[in-house]
Amino acid sequence: MMNRDVPLKKYMKKMEYSYTLGAFPTIELLKKQPEHVLKVLLHPDMNSQVQLDLIQGLCSEHNIPLEWAGRTVEKLRDKDNIFAIGVFEKYIGTLDPKKNHIVLVNPSDMGNMGTIIRTSIGFGLENMAIISPGVDVFNPKVVRASMGSLFQLNVHYYENFQEYVDSCGERSMYPFMLKGAIPLQELQRDRTETYSLIFGNEATGLPDSFAEIGQSVVIRHTDHIDSLNLALAAGIGIYEFTK
Amino acid sequence: MMNRDVPLKKYMKKMEYSYTLGAFPTIELLKKQPEHVLKVLLHPDMNSQVQLDLIQGLCSEHNIPLEWAGRTVEKLRDKDNIFAIGVFEKYIGTLDPKKNHIVLVNPSDMGNMGTIIRTSIGFGLENMAIISPGVDVFNPKVVRASMGSLFQLNVHYYENFQEYVDSCGERSMYPFMLKGAIPLQELQRDRTETYSLIFGNEATGLPDSFAEIGQSVVIRHTDHIDSLNLALAAGIGIYEFTK
Repeated sequence: MMNRDVPLKKYMKKMEYSYTLGAFPTIELLKKQPEHVLKVLLHPDMNSQVQLDLIQGLCSEHNIPLEWAGRTVEKLRDKDNIFAIGVFEKYIGTLDPKKNHIVLVNPSDMGNMGTIIRTSIGFGLENMAIISPGVDVFNPKVVRASMGSLFQLNVHYYENFQEYVDSCGERSMYPFMLKGAIPLQELQRDRTETYSLIFGNEATGLPDSFAEIGQSVVIRHTDHIDSLNLALAAGIGIYEFTK
Repeated sequence: MMNRDVPLKKYMKKMEYSYTLGAFPTIELLKKQPEHVLKVLLHPDMNSQVQLDLIQGLCSEHNIPLEWAGRTVEKLRDKDNIFAIGVFEKYIGTLDPKKNHIVLVNPSDMGNMGTIIRTSIGFGLENMAIISPGVDVFNPKVVRASMGSLFQLNVHYYENFQEYVDSCGERSMYPFMLKGAIPLQELQRDRTETYSLIFGNEATGLPDSFAEIGQSVVIRHTDHIDSLNLALAAGIGIYEFTK
C-alpha cells in the first residue's frame, strides 16, 4: 500500500490514487471499497451531522485515518460546497465471465461514463469492459457523475476488442449501431443467455466491422435527430435487456 | 420584431433573444425556426466549407442577415472552437391537446433538459410542458445539449400543474415516482390512448400528491442505487411508451 502521508495534488490520470469529492461519494467509497481507502479529509465547514457520523463510524470500523484538513480540502475540491474528500488507491477489477457485461469502445465523455455506470448498477449489470483509449473511470468527475456507484462496479480496460473477446467467456454479443440489423424494439432473444452489450464512441459510434460480431441492434428513432446521446442509448439498451 | 442592431450581450434569462453557439445548432435553428432568426454571426476562423455553404444558403433563402463579426463571436461564445452564432428571438409554443406530452415539474439541470429534449424528439414526442420554476430552455447550454432539437419542440411553461391540467385536453396521466404503483416493466395500457408522462425534479422527484393523478409508474431498479438520473428515467419512459 502506498504511503498515506504523500502530499496530495490535484487529480491527474497518471496518479496511483484518486479522490471522492463530497460526502455522498465518500460514504459510498467507505461502504463498498474500504480496503482501498487511504484516508478521509474533512473541512471544518462540514455541516451535516448525519453524514459526519456515518463517515466517522465507517472510518473507525475499518481503521481508516480521518483528518480535519480544511486547507487541503480547499486545494483539492472543484466546488465550494465540498467538505469531505476520500483518498483511495486505484484498483483493477476482474470481469466475471459468467455474468452479463457492458462494453464501451473508446468512450470519451466523463459525465456520460458516470451516468452509464449508475444506470448499469441500477439494473444489475456489474461488469464493464472499456476498450482503450477510453475515459479514466477514476477521475473524480466520473466518480461524482456515477453518484459513487463506481465502487460497486467491476471494470477492466482492454488494449483492443480482440483482447476482450479472448477473455470474456462464451456469450452472445450485441453491438449497438445506427446500422444495426434489428431494432431493439423488435428483438427476440433467449432469456437464459449470457450477453455483452457493446456501445461505441459518442461522436463516431462503433466501426462498421462490428456489424459482423454477434447480433447488431439499432434503437429505432425518428430521422428528426442524428442519434441518441450515448448514455441514453446505453441506458435504454440496459433497461430492455434486463427487463 | 426587435431591432436587429441591438448590441449583443452574454446571454441572460431575462433577455428577449438567445443564441445558438456553434454551426450545428445554428443550422438546426435556420432550418426549423427561420422566422425567429435575427441574424447569424460568423468568425473568420470558420473552417468547414460545407457548414458555411449551408448557413449562407439558408440565410439567403430566408433573407436573414449574415455578418462576419469575429470579435462579437469571441465575446459571446463559451468555447474557443465556436465560429458561428445564431441570434434568435425567443418564442412561445402551444401544446397540441391531441398529442402525447412530456411534463417536467421543476427541472433544474440544463444538461438533463437538453438531453431529454433530444430524446423526446428522437422518439416522436414533440410537446413538452414545464411546470415553473424550471430551467430556461432557451439558455444556449440547453440548446447545445439538445443538439438543436429544441427547435422542433413545442414547449410551454405553466405556473403550476393545475394550470397545465386545465388546458391539456383529455388524456391519461402517468407520473413517474420512486413510490409508483406499477413497474414500467409490467405496465399494460391501451395503445390508442393519448398520454402525458410526468417527471419531477432531479433532487426531489415528484411530490407524493402526484400518486393520486392517473397511473403512477416506477422504473424498477436494484436497491444498489438511490435513483436513476432524470434524463435516463425520462428517456427510458419515453422509449417504452413509444415502442
